[in-house]
Amino acid sequence: MQENTNINSLIGQHEDAICLPPTNHPRIVLIGGGFAGMALLEKLKNQPVQVVLVDKNNFHQFQPLFYQIATSGLEPDSIVFPFRKQIGKSKNIIFRLAEVLEIKTDENVVVTSEGIISYDYLVLATGTTSNFFGMEKVQRHSVGMKSIRDALNIRHMMLQNLEKAAITCDEKEREALTSFVIVGGGPAGVETAGALAEFCKYILPKDYPEYPSSSMKIFLLEAQQELLAAMSSNASKKTLAYLKRLHVNILLNDSLVDYNGEMVITKSGQKIPSKNLIWTAGVMGSFPKGINSLCVVRGNRLKVNEFLMIDGYSNVFALGDLAALITKTRPEGYPQVAQVAIQQGQTLARNILRLGTDKSPLPFIYHDKGSLATVGKRRAVADIGRLKFSGYFAWILWSVVHLFSISGFRNKLLVGLNWAVSYLSYEKSNRVIIRNFRPKHQA
Amino acid sequence: MQENTNINSLIGQHEDAICLPPTNHPRIVLIGGGFAGMALLEKLKNQPVQVVLVDKNNFHQFQPLFYQIATSGLEPDSIVFPFRKQIGKSKNIIFRLAEVLEIKTDENVVVTSEGIISYDYLVLATGTTSNFFGMEKVQRHSVGMKSIRDALNIRHMMLQNLEKAAITCDEKEREALTSFVIVGGGPAGVETAGALAEFCKYILPKDYPEYPSSSMKIFLLEAQQELLAAMSSNASKKTLAYLKRLHVNILLNDSLVDYNGEMVITKSGQKIPSKNLIWTAGVMGSFPKGINSLCVVRGNRLKVNEFLMIDGYSNVFALGDLAALITKTRPEGYPQVAQVAIQQGQTLARNILRLGTDKSPLPFIYHDKGSLATVGKRRAVADIGRLKFSGYFAWILWSVVHLFSISGFRNKLLVGLNWAVSYLSYEKSNRVIIRNFRPKHQA
Repeated sequence: MQENTNINSLIGQHEDAICLPPTNHPRIVLIGGGFAGMALLEKLKNQPVQVVLVDKNNFHQFQPLFYQIATSGLEPDSIVFPFRKQIGKSKNIIFRLAEVLEIKTDENVVVTSEGIISYDYLVLATGTTSNFFGMEKVQRHSVGMKSIRDALNIRHMMLQNLEKAAITCDEKEREALTSFVIVGGGPAGVETAGALAEFCKYILPKDYPEYPSSSMKIFLLEAQQELLAAMSSNASKKTLAYLKRLHVNILLNDSLVDYNGEMVITKSGQKIPSKNLIWTAGVMGSFPKGINSLCVVRGNRLKVNEFLMIDGYSNVFALGDLAALITKTRPEGYPQVAQVAIQQGQTLARNILRLGTDKSPLPFIYHDKGSLATVGKRRAVADIGRLKFSGYFAWILWSVVHLFSISGFRNKLLVGLNWAVSYLSYEKSNRVIIRNFRPKHQA
Repeated sequence: MQENTNINSLIGQHEDAICLPPTNHPRIVLIGGGFAGMALLEKLKNQPVQVVLVDKNNFHQFQPLFYQIATSGLEPDSIVFPFRKQIGKSKNIIFRLAEVLEIKTDENVVVTSEGIISYDYLVLATGTTSNFFGMEKVQRHSVGMKSIRDALNIRHMMLQNLEKAAITCDEKEREALTSFVIVGGGPAGVETAGALAEFCKYILPKDYPEYPSSSMKIFLLEAQQELLAAMSSNASKKTLAYLKRLHVNILLNDSLVDYNGEMVITKSGQKIPSKNLIWTAGVMGSFPKGINSLCVVRGNRLKVNEFLMIDGYSNVFALGDLAALITKTRPEGYPQVAQVAIQQGQTLARNILRLGTDKSPLPFIYHDKGSLATVGKRRAVADIGRLKFSGYFAWILWSVVHLFSISGFRNKLLVGLNWAVSYLSYEKSNRVIIRNFRPKHQA
């Protein structure tokens, strides 16, 4: 392993350096504790490196279940996990709560909201953010689903608008308040639509006896000609059938062209009055400034080589949703899913440990374990290798896979209990509005 | 029961009236769903009255456990309970999410953020808010503990400042970040101090191995010469001993005179560097404008007669912490505790049902069931009638009483499970900062 370039004396030069324990090992600064970052961190525990995890949150978020937070199926604390708990007793892993403002690659330094950190190796695992494709008006009036706060915003928007619908005597106003438009027919959009449809079917009549459950309408907009386009056509067809059975209005081959907070206008000319727009239609890579713009490719991702090193750099890496590893068979890069992120984190960890040795680095090889998506309760679709199936068994598989993927015993227990209660009773967790939701244009 | 004064035609006159189901019964508008409001509501379920509950939140808050939210012992969703769940199938109870802006008692109308509501009887159960006795600077830099949001603010302030303490290399700065000053030695202050001390003892060394647990200091400031002054002197003495054993620095006969967000200055001249000030030293009645100021007495409470009717009104009542029912034996009014609030709500409900009959109203008579306070884990103090005791058994009693008082089976289960896990392991729930805490002066 290569010699540390006397980091501690370097730190001494900076008055506003973040305090870190002294080390004789190389320092890896990891920005972002998502799936990729956590996988890297796990493999580097108690190894001869110092890993400094920098994140603007103090917790890892289990993104696949955001939609259950949004629809009151789970409470946020059961799908987020504090980094400090994850780190445990590994003294070589250090967490610092800070927002990264800039990377200075020529100085090997990261500038954060709380001070600067120098590094020997830098790993960007900052993921993606919602892509509104330049439609600022839409962005202002809608809610994405890329963080636990987004998910809570959706929940609060929904509960607040249902309360407003109970208050208004104006039927048109009530229709707009109780109509939900979800843009994007990928897993997030499909799962949200299914969960909302079930909320509408089972919870609404109990909680809002004042207006008929048929007054709540759910629309799902997808620009392509099928839902879950990344999965098999069997999965797409089944998903369509399941959602239709739940009375979701599905608009295929159609996309949103305008939204003013009151009325959705689609490409085909449809007008849907709605005060609830959930945006799952696109993502773009999100990373701090300071990276050479020549490395940025489609979707704002960073071009990396087979060792996940960013083009043109020798000690800066990118992982997961942010990384675009373009090969002949993958001209678009790997899909932006948890499995790729986790496996990339593991590959990079192995390579970092090989750095000081005479072993050559390993290229990233993806082992596709398959795809799963759930559509309402007791229904899911699965593509596992050549096996394409759907229905109750797929849903059991979905539940087991997700339950085992959640960090921490306490969280597994909480989520499992919630699901069991929900399975038996269709009862949801407490539907409370703790933070008021204010759309961005009013905030 | 007296005839309804044709409310529906009255509503028709107002363009911005809140939509309500028509009724032939008198309408009672209840502002505030705390202990008093909930007790009133329970007794009026399925009775020949229409009750409209108006609250700015959609949930009831179990205030006695706020301190456990603040110290990461419990998650907020387990101690708040949605009004709509509480109401259930009782069609005569209606909830409206709105903030009351003004009361027009000469028109029998309540003006809210969402529109107006007319009433036959009005019940104010809006409770109290923190009283900073005019010290605006202190108010700006400290956090109260009067709502679930306050409690979450305390939690986030604590976790954020502990993270900042890990970042700074400046020892003085670190001391201020890890010192906690609690002002007020009543139950809220004592219970918070105890819980923080245990956090410091059991959690800190695990989560922040970087700095010694002795670096976190807790101060409790009380203007009187004993803690829990409202309880027996036995309880006060035991509490003092328990907190001292937990290394809480207790300053009696002393009070805060200035705080600039960095340094606490006390009356006796002590200076404590601290960036964490928790204010539990006083409360004042909180109610919308429109009530005759002649009814306002000490502590901003509203003077009521023995039937809880506000002085000078014939159809406006006040309940709980807000009501000052002054008698010869109670020149200060009844204590501002849950038991008084609940019993007042029940008394008023009985009287409302007597209104149309020839039965005369019942005066409020308080049945004091005793007081309990907990000091850290496995220690509590109890005054039950003439019985004064403390220690492990008092703590068991405290736990059972509180568990049974929480609304809803799901919440009882969640709180019970959390407590059981915590009892066995000293492990706390997830310590995550979902909302960033910003002091008011930065917000």
